[in-house]
Amino acid sequence: MDYQAVIEEVAAHARPYAGQGQVADYIPALERVSADRFGIAVADIDGKVYGAGDWEVPFSVQSISKTFSLALVMAQGHSSHSGDDEIWRRVGREPSGTPFNSLVQLEAENGIPRNPFINAGALVVTDRLLTLTGDASTALLHFLREESGNPDLAFDQAVADSEADHGDRNAALAHFMASFGNLENPVPSVIEHYFWQCSIEMSCRDLAVAGGFLARHGLRADGSRLLEAREAKRINAVMLTCGTYDAAGEFAYRVGLPAKSGVGGGIVAVVPGRCTLCVWSPGLDARGNSVAGAAALDHFTTLTGWSVF
Amino acid sequence: MDYQAVIEEVAAHARPYAGQGQVADYIPALERVSADRFGIAVADIDGKVYGAGDWEVPFSVQSISKTFSLALVMAQGHSSHSGDDEIWRRVGREPSGTPFNSLVQLEAENGIPRNPFINAGALVVTDRLLTLTGDASTALLHFLREESGNPDLAFDQAVADSEADHGDRNAALAHFMASFGNLENPVPSVIEHYFWQCSIEMSCRDLAVAGGFLARHGLRADGSRLLEAREAKRINAVMLTCGTYDAAGEFAYRVGLPAKSGVGGGIVAVVPGRCTLCVWSPGLDARGNSVAGAAALDHFTTLTGWSVF
Amino acid sequence: MDYQAVIEEVAAHARPYAGQGQVADYIPALERVSADRFGIAVADIDGKVYGAGDWEVPFSVQSISKTFSLALVMAQGHSSHSGDDEIWRRVGREPSGTPFNSLVQLEAENGIPRNPFINAGALVVTDRLLTLTGDASTALLHFLREESGNPDLAFDQAVADSEADHGDRNAALAHFMASFGNLENPVPSVIEHYFWQCSIEMSCRDLAVAGGFLARHGLRADGSRLLEAREAKRINAVMLTCGTYDAAGEFAYRVGLPAKSGVGGGIVAVVPGRCTLCVWSPGLDARGNSVAGAAALDHFTTLTGWSVF
Amino acid sequence: MDYQAVIEEVAAHARPYAGQGQVADYIPALERVSADRFGIAVADIDGKVYGAGDWEVPFSVQSISKTFSLALVMAQGHSSHSGDDEIWRRVGREPSGTPFNSLVQLEAENGIPRNPFINAGALVVTDRLLTLTGDASTALLHFLREESGNPDLAFDQAVADSEADHGDRNAALAHFMASFGNLENPVPSVIEHYFWQCSIEMSCRDLAVAGGFLARHGLRADGSRLLEAREAKRINAVMLTCGTYDAAGEFAYRVGLPAKSGVGGGIVAVVPGRCTLCVWSPGLDARGNSVAGAAALDHFTTLTGWSVF
Repeated sequence: MDYQAVIEEVAAHARPYAGQGQVADYIPALERVSADRFGIAVADIDGKVYGAGDWEVPFSVQSISKTFSLALVMAQGHSSHSGDDEIWRRVGREPSGTPFNSLVQLEAENGIPRNPFINAGALVVTDRLLTLTGDASTALLHFLREESGNPDLAFDQAVADSEADHGDRNAALAHFMASFGNLENPVPSVIEHYFWQCSIEMSCRDLAVAGGFLARHGLRADGSRLLEAREAKRINAVMLTCGTYDAAGEFAYRVGLPAKSGVGGGIVAVVPGRCTLCVWSPGLDARGNSVAGAAALDHFTTLTGWSVF
Repeated sequence: MDYQAVIEEVAAHARPYAGQGQVADYIPALERVSADRFGIAVADIDGKVYGAGDWEVPFSVQSISKTFSLALVMAQGHSSHSGDDEIWRRVGREPSGTPFNSLVQLEAENGIPRNPFINAGALVVTDRLLTLTGDASTALLHFLREESGNPDLAFDQAVADSEADHGDRNAALAHFMASFGNLENPVPSVIEHYFWQCSIEMSCRDLAVAGGFLARHGLRADGSRLLEAREAKRINAVMLTCGTYDAAGEFAYRVGLPAKSGVGGGIVAVVPGRCTLCVWSPGLDARGNSVAGAAALDHFTTLTGWSVF
Repeated sequence: MDYQAVIEEVAAHARPYAGQGQVADYIPALERVSADRFGIAVADIDGKVYGAGDWEVPFSVQSISKTFSLALVMAQGHSSHSGDDEIWRRVGREPSGTPFNSLVQLEAENGIPRNPFINAGALVVTDRLLTLTGDASTALLHFLREESGNPDLAFDQAVADSEADHGDRNAALAHFMASFGNLENPVPSVIEHYFWQCSIEMSCRDLAVAGGFLARHGLRADGSRLLEAREAKRINAVMLTCGTYDAAGEFAYRVGLPAKSGVGGGIVAVVPGRCTLCVWSPGLDARGNSVAGAAALDHFTTLTGWSVF
Repeated sequence: MDYQAVIEEVAAHARPYAGQGQVADYIPALERVSADRFGIAVADIDGKVYGAGDWEVPFSVQSISKTFSLALVMAQGHSSHSGDDEIWRRVGREPSGTPFNSLVQLEAENGIPRNPFINAGALVVTDRLLTLTGDASTALLHFLREESGNPDLAFDQAVADSEADHGDRNAALAHFMASFGNLENPVPSVIEHYFWQCSIEMSCRDLAVAGGFLARHGLRADGSRLLEAREAKRINAVMLTCGTYDAAGEFAYRVGLPAKSGVGGGIVAVVPGRCTLCVWSPGLDARGNSVAGAAALDHFTTLTGWSVF
């Protein structure tokens, strides 16, 4: 497989879609990004990286951070007495079937979020990470620096502050779960760490490399084990069924790869046993997924035949 | 009408129900009340008061305060430029059809609570009162002292503190409405005033007298006008359709009077043009209304024929 | 009270609203009615009738029939062993809080409709009437002829047939309740009787007179008893809390009388102990209530002060 | 891969689970099946079949038929002008997030079922198949006989009749969709064909062989093309995200294969490019999936490492 040739063809196919859709505008720091950016990177399981377009330009990872927080909680669980099952008593694994920030489901299901990728579920994961590490956002940042090999990764304070200014919905979710006893730490602290996690800036390169363990069945680039094979497989399963907001079924149908998207326009996707990809273009469709990014992944699986199905 | 004879017969009928149901136990200060208390008071439109049983024992007014907050906002609206209609742009007048603290409805209706007596609606009323007065809970206390003629009315700090310890659900409601732009003041401030309002202690006597303006078509005991007749009628309409949590239809069917209940076991009811009643007994039915209190009101309308229907 | 003078002033006030709103157009037979019709009739408790405008023009009663079906089931219950309580085990008395033909509530509450005036509840009432009489629609027609004193009342076959052509939603409701065991008769039979009941044509005069027992605490015009006072009061309570679709709270707030509306543009309202009114104008507001009819009732209670509150 | 050895180990592992859970008892014909049955069959892509336990005992396919109806509609679409996209305008591809027979989602989404595997969606697929073939259930039976190579496959009339006796929920779904214009054929006809499809009896062997095209990227056993590779992939994607009622996320997490279950206790699963499996054991978990069947598939992917993730 000549990865470079493939991703250049994918980029040529997808770039016309850049500029379509709407750039997230609920916080000023996201709105400023130029809509016609497009980047793609692929990291194979041996750690070689290929890129095209704006693949080295940092962008706000937003919800993509949820995949890494979950992995870190599962990895941290190894050394705790509770194991990785603790988190699954407090958050489900089922697709949500309702908008990603819905309170309806929480009310019907006693404060247990349907999965770790809706906002409520990610707040529970952050809460758990805070308990396990004492500093959830810093722990995540260090983890991402290590996995990506990029020591310059940093929070974007303007983004974190902006999120906080528009944080009433997340505060409502957190207080609501707290009313069911499903938070271990004070609401303001959980919210704050959650926003910092979302504000991390990374490039397609950084994310494709950092997500390598998901294609390597849990192994780090250096061969050491981060997660059990079973655990890496399970994160991929949750990504495929829940990773792209309320479009997971459509995404599985079109692309057929585990993937996690963010409103910054990035999407990380995994071909288990082969490679991890990251695409980026800020224009979002009605469900919050990058238009050009989805087109790129669609074309990638068409060219390679590497859908999981 | 010999009020004293009637309420003594009502008391005799209802007292056996005292002790039935569950005393609210979500905060210690409520739980401590003896379940077999029962009191009833009637204030006629001339200001004469009749009582039986524990009618002079103070109890926690809880949600009954919502009726008076609403009246105060409507009265304050007279002197503002906005009039009493301002509040009705931010809260509806329809029965909720779902449990009183539900978030589902709020989500479906863009942060506008269905009515001012569900918790979300009462938070909006408190928020409005805070804007109009600068100190919502103190304004309400002074208003209740004046209307009841009892200068000793006070907050119960233990109750307010306990509520705050269990306040995540209300904080969730408030943040959720704030995310829709339906709060004017900071969430913690609104919540705090809301809890203080609920913590006020009053007896059946105090409440029957204080609610006299609802039977007098808006006139105070001294003949001065608090509300327009139209406004008093409208509060009664909201009480009848929304005043007893998710049992308003059942209450109208059995009793047929505008009424507002609280989880402290009190119920205020109005016979327009005739009198205001207050009954109290701490045991609550599954929907949060006093068992003996409802039995008393049922018997009262049977004896007098004074259902509005 | 000079009823004739009052209703002429009411008519003068309300007639400009005739033509506003939308005429129900889901079936051709309703759509054909001229939007600018307006009629009003009042029957006092002595049986005297006053009218203005198109008060003798027959129109399709539609959901107003639900009030009379309910009364007939309650009256029939007297002679059965079960009494009037049987029906209340199969249908609730609470406002619905959701659109009148909603399936959501039914699913959440095990096939028990919230009240007898939403379609699902009316189907249960029809089913019960079918069991009690063997022919629900004919029994209702005879009852209405007798109460109105108009032997010419008849079904409108075109309307009944049109309803049946658009009856999938009601068939869904009926089958859904049957799946919970809450129907006694076959679905097609219940549906058919339901449509025939709705298709009856009556004028404002007919309806005001026929509804006289609701103002006379259950007595017929000839002084014989149709319902216990308690039962008539209860129907009024259900009308006030549930009689005007999802606008019952608003209606209580503006008008303050028990009322039942239909998509044919009629509204029957009751002033207990005084009179029964019927207004008619085909233009409907967004919630399915006659625009000019509601304006007329609003003005009527303003003029007379006869709100129940 | 020694398939025979693997499935014997899987059978040894899973057989102790046979007898756990509840046998579907809503129709007598299903209830009669002995709970401790267990069978497993694997058909590799070359058409060789391996079996263990009760792998040749016919059972009621129930909802597994939905996968084949969908495939047949997609295949039939090739020869129609509309192509396979027609069906996707009338049914979605997203997990439902609510119980499989829910009306709530249908109401919120204008009569478009979330996916073809919930009952409402399967009724739309049956309706489409009826339009395309004139006889949906016979067309499906012939298709299954052909794909399984078993000319003796037949409907179980007792099951179809029993389903019809308990068919009010499905009739409600069908009438409800008809009220939104989302059915092309009369409700009773669609319902009847739907029940006949569910009543077909097949063994693990029959189903594993018949589902071979899903592992062969759309090719039949004889090498002729039934579906485009893209189409077969898409059915697998819908199976993985929606194939096991409200447990699809959990199933992906534990097993990681596209699968479709039925309340008869069967589950068909696909390892794309390798093989199709069928497991059967009648005891169901709370979500309607075979307890021993799920345990078997879990163990199968553990032994082989053939999860798609």
